[in-house]
Amino acid sequence: MNDESYDLESMLTLMKDVYENHMPFNKLLGVKIVTLELDDICVRIDMREDFIGNFIKNILHGGVISSILDFTGGLVASMGMIKQMNDATSQEIMDRIAKVGTIDLRVDYLRSGKGDYFTATGFLLRTGKKVAVVRTEFRNNEDILIAAGTSSYIVG
Amino acid sequence: MNDESYDLESMLTLMKDVYENHMPFNKLLGVKIVTLELDDICVRIDMREDFIGNFIKNILHGGVISSILDFTGGLVASMGMIKQMNDATSQEIMDRIAKVGTIDLRVDYLRSGKGDYFTATGFLLRTGKKVAVVRTEFRNNEDILIAAGTSSYIVG
Amino acid sequence: MNDESYDLESMLTLMKDVYENHMPFNKLLGVKIVTLELDDICVRIDMREDFIGNFIKNILHGGVISSILDFTGGLVASMGMIKQMNDATSQEIMDRIAKVGTIDLRVDYLRSGKGDYFTATGFLLRTGKKVAVVRTEFRNNEDILIAAGTSSYIVG
Amino acid sequence: MNDESYDLESMLTLMKDVYENHMPFNKLLGVKIVTLELDDICVRIDMREDFIGNFIKNILHGGVISSILDFTGGLVASMGMIKQMNDATSQEIMDRIAKVGTIDLRVDYLRSGKGDYFTATGFLLRTGKKVAVVRTEFRNNEDILIAAGTSSYIVG
Repeated sequence: MNDESYDLESMLTLMKDVYENHMPFNKLLGVKIVTLELDDICVRIDMREDFIGNFIKNILHGGVISSILDFTGGLVASMGMIKQMNDATSQEIMDRIAKVGTIDLRVDYLRSGKGDYFTATGFLLRTGKKVAVVRTEFRNNEDILIAAGTSSYIVG
Repeated sequence: MNDESYDLESMLTLMKDVYENHMPFNKLLGVKIVTLELDDICVRIDMREDFIGNFIKNILHGGVISSILDFTGGLVASMGMIKQMNDATSQEIMDRIAKVGTIDLRVDYLRSGKGDYFTATGFLLRTGKKVAVVRTEFRNNEDILIAAGTSSYIVG
Repeated sequence: MNDESYDLESMLTLMKDVYENHMPFNKLLGVKIVTLELDDICVRIDMREDFIGNFIKNILHGGVISSILDFTGGLVASMGMIKQMNDATSQEIMDRIAKVGTIDLRVDYLRSGKGDYFTATGFLLRTGKKVAVVRTEFRNNEDILIAAGTSSYIVG
Repeated sequence: MNDESYDLESMLTLMKDVYENHMPFNKLLGVKIVTLELDDICVRIDMREDFIGNFIKNILHGGVISSILDFTGGLVASMGMIKQMNDATSQEIMDRIAKVGTIDLRVDYLRSGKGDYFTATGFLLRTGKKVAVVRTEFRNNEDILIAAGTSSYIVG
């Protein structure tokens, strides 16, 4: 393992800490980053009573889903950006990641948000110098697809 | 004022209470319904520290915005549905409103979510027997347009 | 091969003919259905000079792409519907297919539309009694992903 | 009228000619630019038999609608860009307009595309140094809203 890969690992550990513990809305929702690697992202959220959106059907509010899909897509876009910044320092990468912003988001609500916990994953459709586009999926603990997202991000 | 309009007013008051106090995720976010009339909807949310999504820029998390726009659009779709149910009883209306569900949602994040409080409004593009489509807007207390939404709902 | 599968094959052959030869806008664009099976759809369009949208860059107009993705998604939604109509007659199926309509469509334009010909495929995210949701992809003859779509259809 | 406004008028006349007569797909569809001013855009298309998408219902193919809304949104984004380029030469403006590209497009199909002719208009939700976001509307000759669009464009 060379110096560079070590730096990457440290940086991803730092990012994970920042996103989980220093981003207040993620903390409010209890968002956990299960996997944060350049080519593999998994975000988890545990069902809680105060996430219920429909008290008759006892299902997750759509806003929890869109929040997680937006966040997951942003992580995927950030990883794609890091992969393109070959000779950059950690500081340069962190500075650029801090500027990643969602341009727009589409969420398709496919099935009722029932489950004990939920995981979100995503993959890059495209990344460029300015814009990245990501597709995301939101599944419950039985691996049932609850919602799907497509979002675009400004990355430069 | 005839019996019917009295019923409508009572029903809207009941709906307001249900959405504000018995929908847990709305309660978590502190969502307030400022106006709930057949042709006029206004939803408000006050800025709180735990809504911050970017701790450097101190701005609202996109998930708060998408949550509010999804909810506001659903209210607009529900009002449109009530207007079409001329001879229905309150119970029939409440039953049908409980089944309204978001098919999909697009949010365009236009400007940084800075402000003391935010309001969301919306209007029907179309309502039919099965599907309603709504455009929504999310503004800060200086009336600056922060985000815009388009969402479709199953209404029958 | 039993009678039923024979009927299915005849019906799909008929559908293919209708979509290619009796839907005027498809004919104008020269849309070809390469594969039309219950679980496999492929639509093709050949590059033509009058499809160019940017005469400097010589690339496909976005409208050709959105037209093909909307049509492909509708085929995927129709196939999903047929799979659910187990005891229906050909006539019942054709009647219901004629009523399939696009609710909304998102297209992400990922890369320049350069190529000799293009193919579109898609898969169901969900199908229900009322709404189907489909993800589609548009690739050039070098298998480069040019655009991606998500669309929802009323199916009942 | 000073020199500058004269330049603007000439440039807009040139743009109109380019878009109507030298963009092959627009020519195939017979797209007309009714109004092209910095704050006012109107695009028109006349119904033709080969635009039909549903031969039973005799209505416009959704692809014609999405093509026109994408094009109209691009014009609105381009006008917004010109308004920000105060000291630019015509050549600089034309160079930048040639690079405007659609990031993504959402179309909501609201009502059947019946009519003798159709017009599309749009307005800017936001324009910035990199991204512009536009809302568009597509109406028939009886001013009935047939479809609505939201699209984002790379503008720098």
